[in-house]
Amino acid sequence: MTQPLRLGIAGLGTVGVGVIRMVQRHGEMLATRAGRPISISAVSARNRDKDRGVDLSGYAWEDNAADLAARDDVDLVVELIGGIEGSARETVEAAIAHGKDVVTANKALLAIHGHDLATKAEAAGLALRFEAAVAGGIPCVKALTEGLAGNKIERVMGVMNGTCNYILTRMESAGLPYETVFAEANDLGYLEADPTLDVGGIDAGHKLALLAAAAFGIRVDFDAVRLEGIERVTIDDITHAADMGFAIKLLGVAQLTGRGLDMRMSPCLVPLASPLGQLHGATNMVVFEGDAVGQIVLRGAGAGEGPTASAVMGDIVDIARGLRLPVFGVPADQLRAETRANTGAPSPYYLRMDILDKPGALAKIAACLGEAGISIDRMRQYDHADTNAPVLIVTHKAGRTELDAAIEAMARTGVLASEPVAFRIEQIGE
Amino acid sequence: MTQPLRLGIAGLGTVGVGVIRMVQRHGEMLATRAGRPISISAVSARNRDKDRGVDLSGYAWEDNAADLAARDDVDLVVELIGGIEGSARETVEAAIAHGKDVVTANKALLAIHGHDLATKAEAAGLALRFEAAVAGGIPCVKALTEGLAGNKIERVMGVMNGTCNYILTRMESAGLPYETVFAEANDLGYLEADPTLDVGGIDAGHKLALLAAAAFGIRVDFDAVRLEGIERVTIDDITHAADMGFAIKLLGVAQLTGRGLDMRMSPCLVPLASPLGQLHGATNMVVFEGDAVGQIVLRGAGAGEGPTASAVMGDIVDIARGLRLPVFGVPADQLRAETRANTGAPSPYYLRMDILDKPGALAKIAACLGEAGISIDRMRQYDHADTNAPVLIVTHKAGRTELDAAIEAMARTGVLASEPVAFRIEQIGE
Ligand SMILES: NC(=O)c1ccc[n+]([C@@H]2O[C@H](COP(=O)([O-])OP(=O)(O)OC[C@H]3O[C@@H](n4cnc5c(N)ncnc54)[C@H](OP(=O)(O)O)[C@@H]3O)[C@@H](O)[C@H]2O)c1
Ligand SMILES: NC(=O)c1ccc[n+]([C@@H]2O[C@H](COP(=O)([O-])OP(=O)(O)OC[C@H]3O[C@@H](n4cnc5c(N)ncnc54)[C@H](OP(=O)(O)O)[C@@H]3O)[C@@H](O)[C@H]2O)c1
Repeated sequence: MTQPLRLGIAGLGTVGVGVIRMVQRHGEMLATRAGRPISISAVSARNRDKDRGVDLSGYAWEDNAADLAARDDVDLVVELIGGIEGSARETVEAAIAHGKDVVTANKALLAIHGHDLATKAEAAGLALRFEAAVAGGIPCVKALTEGLAGNKIERVMGVMNGTCNYILTRMESAGLPYETVFAEANDLGYLEADPTLDVGGIDAGHKLALLAAAAFGIRVDFDAVRLEGIERVTIDDITHAADMGFAIKLLGVAQLTGRGLDMRMSPCLVPLASPLGQLHGATNMVVFEGDAVGQIVLRGAGAGEGPTASAVMGDIVDIARGLRLPVFGVPADQLRAETRANTGAPSPYYLRMDILDKPGALAKIAACLGEAGISIDRMRQYDHADTNAPVLIVTHKAGRTELDAAIEAMARTGVLASEPVAFRIEQIGE
Repeated sequence: MTQPLRLGIAGLGTVGVGVIRMVQRHGEMLATRAGRPISISAVSARNRDKDRGVDLSGYAWEDNAADLAARDDVDLVVELIGGIEGSARETVEAAIAHGKDVVTANKALLAIHGHDLATKAEAAGLALRFEAAVAGGIPCVKALTEGLAGNKIERVMGVMNGTCNYILTRMESAGLPYETVFAEANDLGYLEADPTLDVGGIDAGHKLALLAAAAFGIRVDFDAVRLEGIERVTIDDITHAADMGFAIKLLGVAQLTGRGLDMRMSPCLVPLASPLGQLHGATNMVVFEGDAVGQIVLRGAGAGEGPTASAVMGDIVDIARGLRLPVFGVPADQLRAETRANTGAPSPYYLRMDILDKPGALAKIAACLGEAGISIDRMRQYDHADTNAPVLIVTHKAGRTELDAAIEAMARTGVLASEPVAFRIEQIGE
C-alpha cells in the first residue's frame, strides 16, 4: 500500500468533528477505496481544552490553524473554520503557500476569494476542493464539473438553505406566520448567529455563485447575485400560491442570457408538482439543465455533521486517488469575467398588494401594468374587513425592468395601501 | 495544450451518434474542460452505408469493431454496440488486450462479465468506465464511488427502467389496463426487441447488480438479483395502493443484511409522497442511503441520445483528465464474493387475491397468515359481481419465507380463485 494521505484539520466544530469520526470509524474502508490510508496528523481550533466527544490524543495540536500548513507530516489541509477573512483565509493561503492541497466547506470564503485562491492553487499545481460548501452532502459540484462535463449547462437552480426551506414549508404546513416560525427556528438553533445570512439569502447566494462559476466557466462573482430574502413572504402568499398550483421557495437561479449572466436568489413560485415544489423541510435540492442531459435533480441533506463530513471526505478521497482538477472545472485563467445581465429573462410574476378601497383603484393598478406592456393572466381581489383590499395578480411573461417600472407607476397612483410584493414564477419543465 | 485523447467509437446507433454529435458540437468546450482536445479517429458499425445524420467523413472506418483496438491512433475505445456476447464483448476484450482504456454504456455485458473485465482492465492499468450503463444521464456511479466514498452505503434503490415506469404511471393516470399500455408502449417503440428485458426487470436488474457492486464493494452478481416483472400489476392494484397512500414502482433494492446480500428488482409499494412515489413517466431515479450522508436522491433521464451520450462523455472527460479509478471503486481483487441472502429483510406486504364466495373463506385465508406468524394490518373485501371476491390484505412486517409459506398454505385451503399476488411495501424514511 502506498503512502498515507496525512490530514491537518483546521476547525473542530460540527464538520471538523464529523470528519474525524469518519476517519476513526471507517479507516479501513477509506484506505481500500482511496488506495492508500487516510490519516490525521494534526488538528487546530480555538480552545484546546474543549471536550469535543472524539479522541484527539493521537493528533498533534496547533494553536494557530495556519501553522498546520507548515508541518511536514501534513499533505492536505482541511479548512473547517468558516468565515470570509481571518483564520480561515489565512489557513488556506498558508496551505497553498506551503504546497499543500486544500479541502474546504467554506462557501463564504470561496464566494468572495474563490477566484484568487483558485488562481494561486492552480499556479502551485494544488487541489482546492469545496464540495461541502454547496448543498452539504449532495455531490453536486462533482456532478456538474465531472459527470455533466459533456453538457453546455443552460440553467442551474437550487434550494440550498435548509433553514429557509424549513421556515417556508413549516409556515405552509402549520399555517403559522413568518415571525412565529422564524422564532421557532431560532429556538431550535437552526439559524446562523447573524440570521440575515440565512433568511436574507446570503448563504444560499454564496453557494449559487460557486455553482454558477463551475456551470458556466466564469469567475465567481457573488456581487452579481441579486439577493432577496424570504422576510416578505406571508402565509397568505403561500396559500394563494398553493391555490394556483405553486409552492414558494427561496430559489437560486443562474442562467446565461443574451445580455449576460443572470443570477438571483429570491423567493420564487415553482410548480407544486415539480421536484422543487415537493421539497419539504430542511432538505436541499439542486437542479441542472444541460443541453444533452436535460434536467438532472439532486436531493439530500444540505447541512449537519454527517452529510457535510461526507462531502468533505469525498473530496479527500479524490485527492488521495490522485484526481487533480481545476478548482472550477476549467483552469482559473480561462474562466471568463462574464458581464452581469441587468435584468433576468422575462417570466411570469406573482404580485401581491393592498389597495385602498376606492372606486377605480383596481383599474388604476391594472393600467400601470398595461402601460408597461405587461398583460395580466389572473387577478383576484380578496374579501376584506378593513378599508384595504388585498389584491393578487399573476402576470404573463414580463421583463423585470418593465415590472419595476409598473410598480413605480403604481406607487404614484395613490391607491396603494402597501408596497407591492413581486415574486418571480420560475418556469420549470414538467 | 497536451496530446489529444483519440477515440475509437464502436457502434453508431442512438448513443454512438449522440457521442459523435457532442464531440462535433462542443469540441472547444470539451478541450477546455478536459485540458486536452478530445478527437475521434475511427468508428465502426455493421452497415457502412447507412446515413446516420452525422458527418463521418473525417473518421477512419473499421468493419470489425474489435479492430478499433489495434489502431495506433486510438487511445480509448467507446463500446456502444450492446449485448452480452459477440462484438461488444470482443471489442472490449480487444481494447484491454491492446492497452486501450474503455468506456461503455453496456449494462448487459458488465452485469455478466463485469468482474472478469474489471480484473483484466485493472491488471493492465486501464480504465473501464460505465456511467451510461446505469440510469442513463444521471451521474450515479460517480456519486456512489467518488462523491459518497466516505459512507458505508446501507441501501441502494432505483427506478431504472423508464419504460416500466412509463407503463405503470400511464396505467395510473389514464386508468388503462396493463395490456393496453404495454401495446401502446410497443407502438411508440419504447420496448426492447425482447420486451422481457424491460417488463421482466432484466435490464433494470443488470443496472442494480452494477450499482450494488460499487455500493458494497462486492463482485457483480446479476444471478443474485431476484427478478419479478410488472406483468402482474393490475390497474386495481395501482388504485388500491393509491388509496392507501402508495405508488407501485418497479423498484430495485440492494442491501447488505445480516444474512448476506439482498438484491431484488420487483414491483414495490412506495409512499406516494416520497420522491420515488412522485416519479412519473420515463424518468429514472436512484436513491442512496449512507451512514453519514443519509438519503441522497438523483433524478434524470435514464435513456435517449442526449442523456446517454452525456454520461459517456463524463467518463471520457474523466479519462482525458487522467482519472484512474478501480472499475467498481475498489480494486477488483478486493471485491468480496458476497453470500446471497436467501430472503430479504422483513417488510410489510400487499397481497391481492380472488377467493371463492363461500362462508368462512376469508377466515381460512387469514388463518394461513396467522399460522405463518404474520399479522394483518388491513384487510378489505371488494364488492363483486361474480362468485369470486377480490380481497386485499396489507400485512405487518413479515419475512418473505413466512409469506411464501402462508401463500402455499392458502393454495391448499381450496378457497382461492386466483393465485395471490404479493408486492413488498418498501419502507422509505419520510
Ligand atoms: N455545520 C454545517 O452543517 C455546515 C454545512 C456546510 C458547510 N459548513 C461550513 O463548514 C465550516 C465549519 O462549520 P461548522 O458548522 O463546523 O462550524 P463550527 O461548529 O462553528 O466550528 C468552527 C470551528 O472553527 C474553530 N475556529 C474558529 N476560529 C478559529 C481560529 N481562529 N483558529 C482555529 N480554529 C478556529 C472553532 O474552534 P472552537 O471549537 O475552539 O471554538 C470551531 O472548532 C464553515 O465554513 C461552514 O460554513 C458547515
Ligand atoms: N439507447 C439508449 O437510450 C441507451 C441508454 C443507456 C444505455 N444504452 C446502451 O448503449 C448501447 C448502445 O445502445 P444504442 O441504443 O445506441 O443501440 P443501437 O441504436 O441499436 O445501436 C447499436 C449500434 O451497434 C452497431 N453494431 C451492432 N452489431 C455490431 C457489430 N457486430 N460490429 C459493429 N457494430 C455493430 C449497430 O450497427 P448498425 O447501425 O450498422 O446496425 C448500431 O450502430 C447498448 O449497450 C445499450 O444498452 C443505450
